[in-house]
Amino acid sequence: MSRKERVAVYPGSFDPVTFGHLDIIQRAAKQFDWVIVAVLNNEKKNPLFSVQERKELLYQVTLDMPNVEVDSFNELLINYMRSKDAHIIVRGLRAVSDFEYELQMASTNQKLDDTIETFFMMTNPKYSYLSSSIVKEIARFQGQVSDLVPDVVEKELRRKLSSSSSLESAE
Amino acid sequence: MSRKERVAVYPGSFDPVTFGHLDIIQRAAKQFDWVIVAVLNNEKKNPLFSVQERKELLYQVTLDMPNVEVDSFNELLINYMRSKDAHIIVRGLRAVSDFEYELQMASTNQKLDDTIETFFMMTNPKYSYLSSSIVKEIARFQGQVSDLVPDVVEKELRRKLSSSSSLESAE
Amino acid sequence: MSRKERVAVYPGSFDPVTFGHLDIIQRAAKQFDWVIVAVLNNEKKNPLFSVQERKELLYQVTLDMPNVEVDSFNELLINYMRSKDAHIIVRGLRAVSDFEYELQMASTNQKLDDTIETFFMMTNPKYSYLSSSIVKEIARFQGQVSDLVPDVVEKELRRKLSSSSSLESAE
Amino acid sequence: MSRKERVAVYPGSFDPVTFGHLDIIQRAAKQFDWVIVAVLNNEKKNPLFSVQERKELLYQVTLDMPNVEVDSFNELLINYMRSKDAHIIVRGLRAVSDFEYELQMASTNQKLDDTIETFFMMTNPKYSYLSSSIVKEIARFQGQVSDLVPDVVEKELRRKLSSSSSLESAE
Amino acid sequence: MSRKERVAVYPGSFDPVTFGHLDIIQRAAKQFDWVIVAVLNNEKKNPLFSVQERKELLYQVTLDMPNVEVDSFNELLINYMRSKDAHIIVRGLRAVSDFEYELQMASTNQKLDDTIETFFMMTNPKYSYLSSSIVKEIARFQGQVSDLVPDVVEKELRRKLSSSSSLESAE
Amino acid sequence: MSRKERVAVYPGSFDPVTFGHLDIIQRAAKQFDWVIVAVLNNEKKNPLFSVQERKELLYQVTLDMPNVEVDSFNELLINYMRSKDAHIIVRGLRAVSDFEYELQMASTNQKLDDTIETFFMMTNPKYSYLSSSIVKEIARFQGQVSDLVPDVVEKELRRKLSSSSSLESAE
Repeated sequence: MSRKERVAVYPGSFDPVTFGHLDIIQRAAKQFDWVIVAVLNNEKKNPLFSVQERKELLYQVTLDMPNVEVDSFNELLINYMRSKDAHIIVRGLRAVSDFEYELQMASTNQKLDDTIETFFMMTNPKYSYLSSSIVKEIARFQGQVSDLVPDVVEKELRRKLSSSSSLESAE
Repeated sequence: MSRKERVAVYPGSFDPVTFGHLDIIQRAAKQFDWVIVAVLNNEKKNPLFSVQERKELLYQVTLDMPNVEVDSFNELLINYMRSKDAHIIVRGLRAVSDFEYELQMASTNQKLDDTIETFFMMTNPKYSYLSSSIVKEIARFQGQVSDLVPDVVEKELRRKLSSSSSLESAE
Repeated sequence: MSRKERVAVYPGSFDPVTFGHLDIIQRAAKQFDWVIVAVLNNEKKNPLFSVQERKELLYQVTLDMPNVEVDSFNELLINYMRSKDAHIIVRGLRAVSDFEYELQMASTNQKLDDTIETFFMMTNPKYSYLSSSIVKEIARFQGQVSDLVPDVVEKELRRKLSSSSSLESAE
Repeated sequence: MSRKERVAVYPGSFDPVTFGHLDIIQRAAKQFDWVIVAVLNNEKKNPLFSVQERKELLYQVTLDMPNVEVDSFNELLINYMRSKDAHIIVRGLRAVSDFEYELQMASTNQKLDDTIETFFMMTNPKYSYLSSSIVKEIARFQGQVSDLVPDVVEKELRRKLSSSSSLESAE
Repeated sequence: MSRKERVAVYPGSFDPVTFGHLDIIQRAAKQFDWVIVAVLNNEKKNPLFSVQERKELLYQVTLDMPNVEVDSFNELLINYMRSKDAHIIVRGLRAVSDFEYELQMASTNQKLDDTIETFFMMTNPKYSYLSSSIVKEIARFQGQVSDLVPDVVEKELRRKLSSSSSLESAE
Repeated sequence: MSRKERVAVYPGSFDPVTFGHLDIIQRAAKQFDWVIVAVLNNEKKNPLFSVQERKELLYQVTLDMPNVEVDSFNELLINYMRSKDAHIIVRGLRAVSDFEYELQMASTNQKLDDTIETFFMMTNPKYSYLSSSIVKEIARFQGQVSDLVPDVVEKELRRKLSSSSSLESAE
C-alpha cells in the first residue's frame, strides 16, 4: 500500500489561516499519514484573500510538515474527496454554534456517500474564541493580531488592508 | 361550526419544500381540521424560486392531502392569521439554533396578539439536519438530492439551476 | 362526537405546580376540548409533595377551568395516552437544556407510537427562569415565593417545609 | 478622585434603542459612576438609522439619567475604551446565541488589553426575545411596537419607514 | 509494524449498549486497525448491568467485527490508554449537552497527555435521541425497545428487569 | 464613604477552589473595592471538603489580595447579601450549560430583590473546561492536577483522598 494510505482532508475557507487552524493541522498530521488542507473556492462571498493567496499562506505555515499538502476545490466536498480517494474529513469544533452546522454538514455528506467519515477535533481552548472574521476585524482597525495568526499572515493582512483601505471592506 | 373549525397555519420560506417540511405538513394535517401552508413573500432575500413557483411545488406535493391548502402572504404573520380567522401557528424545531429564533418569533407574535398560539413540532430526527439551503447547495454542484426532496422538487431544482448556471447564484 | 373529541395530555412532576405550569394549562385549555394534567408518580425521586398532594394542588388552581382534568399515572406515558384515547402531548419549553431532553422524549414516544404527537408551547418569557426546584429552594430558606406560585401552593409549601424542618430535605 | 471614577462603556448598534437596551442602561447607571452608551459606527451594514439619529434617540430616552452619556465610535472598541480611560464594558445577555458571540468578543478584547473587563448583565426575561431587528420587521409591516420601544423611537420608526416605503428595505 | 498499528479506544458506560453505540463501533472499525470498546467500571453509580454483563453484551453484538475488542477499565482513561499504547479516543456526539461535557473531557485528557487525541463522530441522526437511560426507562415499564437495542440486549433487559421488579430501581 | 464602598460577593461551592475560580477572584478584586468569596454551606450534597476546609484553602490562595475576604453562608443568597449590605454578585461563565442555570439564578435573585445585580465574567478560555468535579475525579485516580489547582489545594486533595481511600467516595 502506498504512503498515502490514511488520507485526511481538512476543508475550510482559511481566509486567512489562524493559529486555531494551524493547531488542528498539526494534530491531524500526527494522526494521519497524509493531510490535505483544502481551500474552498468561495469567491462569491467576497473573501479578503484570493484562493491563490490563501493557499500560499497555508503553504508557508506548513512548510515544516512533510505530510501536509495544500490544495483547493470548487465542487461538492464529497466529489473532491472521491477524486483524492480520501475518506476522512477533519474539522475543528469550537462552540455550540459550530457544532450544529458541522453536524448538519457531516450528516449530509454521510448521506451522500457513506464511505466518508467526519472526525471532529476539539479546538484548543486557548483558541476557542478565535476566528478568521475576528482576525480581519481587528486588523482592519490596526489592532494587534500577532497572538492570533502566524507572522507571515499578519504581514499579509497589513499589506492587504493598507492597499485596500480606500475600498469598501469585504464582509 | 364549519369544517374549518380548527385551522393551523404553517408559515415558511419553502425555497424549496423538503422532506422535512413535508413530514411536518403530514403530521399537522392529522391533528388539525385544516392546514394552510403559507409561503412568505421574501423576494428581497433573493430566493431561488419565486413565490408562485414555491406555491406550485407545495401544491403538487400535497395533492393527496384534502385538508391542506397552499397560500402566500406578504404582511405581518399575525395580520395574515387574522385575515384567515386562524389562531394556531405550527413550526418545526430541528436544532438549538432554530429554537432560539423560533421562541423569539412566538413570543413576539403572542405579545402582538395573545389569541394566537404557536405549537412547535419536533422535526423527524432523520431530517433533523436537512434545510432548503443545504439542498440548494448540493443541487448547485450537481449532487444527489433525491433523499432530501420530493421528485418534482428535484426536477425543478435541476431545471432552475441549469438555466441559471451562467448567473450569479443567490445567497 | 363526544365533548372530549380533542384531548391533550400535559404530563409532568408538578412538585409543586408553578405559575409557569399554570400559564401552559390555561393556554392549552383554550386550544383543546379537554386537557388532562397528568402527574407522574415518581415517588422514588423523593418528591416534596406526594402524588395525592400534587393532584390536590393542581385541582384547586384549575377549579375555574371546566375542560381541565387532573389525573396521575405510573406507567409509560404512551400507554397512559392509549388508556385515555388521547393522541396529543403538550409540553412547555423554557430553555435550551429543556429543549434537548424534550426532543429526546418526543422522538422516543413517536417511535413507540406514531399516532401520538407532541406539541411544544413556549413558556411565557416572564416565567422562563422558573422551576419547581427553584421554588422549593427559595421556600426552604423562608424566601418570598408569592410571585412564583399560586397562594394555595405557597401556603402548602410553608406548612410542608416547617413540619419537615427537622428532617433531611429531599433533593 | 473625579466624578468619573468608575466608568462603564455600553457599546452596541442601537438601531434603534429598545426597552431591552434601556433596562440595561438603567441598571448599569445604578452600579457605576458614569455610563457611556457608545454607538458603533457601522454604516456599511445599512443601518435603518444613521449614527447621528441613533445617538439622538438614545439621548432623548436617557435624559433623566444624570450619569449617562451618549457617544459613538468608529475604531476598535479597546482603543475607544483607552481614549475614554474606561476599563469596564457592559453587555446584556439574552440567549445562547448571544452568549457565544459575546464570549468571543470579551475574550478577544481581554487578549488585546488585559486591563479591560467585560461584565455581562442578564437581560430582563420579559425582554429576552426582543431585538432591534424584530422591532424593525414589525414596524415595516405597520405592526404595534409600543410595548417594545420608547414612544419617541416608535414615532421615528413610523416616520422613517413611511418616508422610505418606496425604497429597498435595509437588511 | 504490527496489526494493531492504529488503535482507537471507545470508552463508555454501555449500560447497556444501544444501536447508537453499535453504529459508532461499526464506523470506527472501518477507519481504524483495531478498536477497543472499553467499559468504565462505575459500580458506585448503581448501573443496571454489572461490568461483566455489559462486556458480555458488547462481546455478543460485535462478534462479527474481527478488529473490535471488548475490555473494561477502572482508572483514569489516559492511564488506561497508555497501558494499551493507544493514542486515539473515539466518542459519539449527539446533542449540545453532550458536546460541552465531551469537550471538557477531551480538553482535560489532552492537558494530562498531549499525545492523546479525541476524535468525535456524529451520531447517526436516527439514533440522535437514543440513550441507555431512555432504553432502561422504557424497558422498566414493559415498553417496546426492539428498535433501540440489539435482540440480545432486549432479552437481557427483560430478564434483568423482571427479576429485579420487586427491588428499588437503580437511577 | 467607607473603604467597603463597592462590595462584590462571589458565591460558590469551591469544593475545592481551582485556577478558574482564582482567575475570577483576581479580576474581580481589580474592579471592586471589596470582594467577599462566599462558600455555600451545602453539606447535604456530600462535598469532599468541609466548609471550614474550603474556607481555609480559599484563605491561603488569596493571602496576597488585601481586598478579598473569605466567608461562608447557609441561607438564601439575597439574605446573605443584605446582611453584608452588598448589592453585586459576581459569577464566572464557562459554557452554555452554565449559562442557563446562571441566568435562572440571576433572574430569581433579581425578582426577590431588585437592588441586587449579577455581573457575569467570562472564564479565561484556558480554564473553560475546568471544574471542581473534574479536578476531584482526576485526583481520585492519582492523576496530575498541578495545572488545574494551586499547590496547597493539590496537597490537600492528595491528603484527603488517601485518607478516604477506603471509604465510599462522594458523588
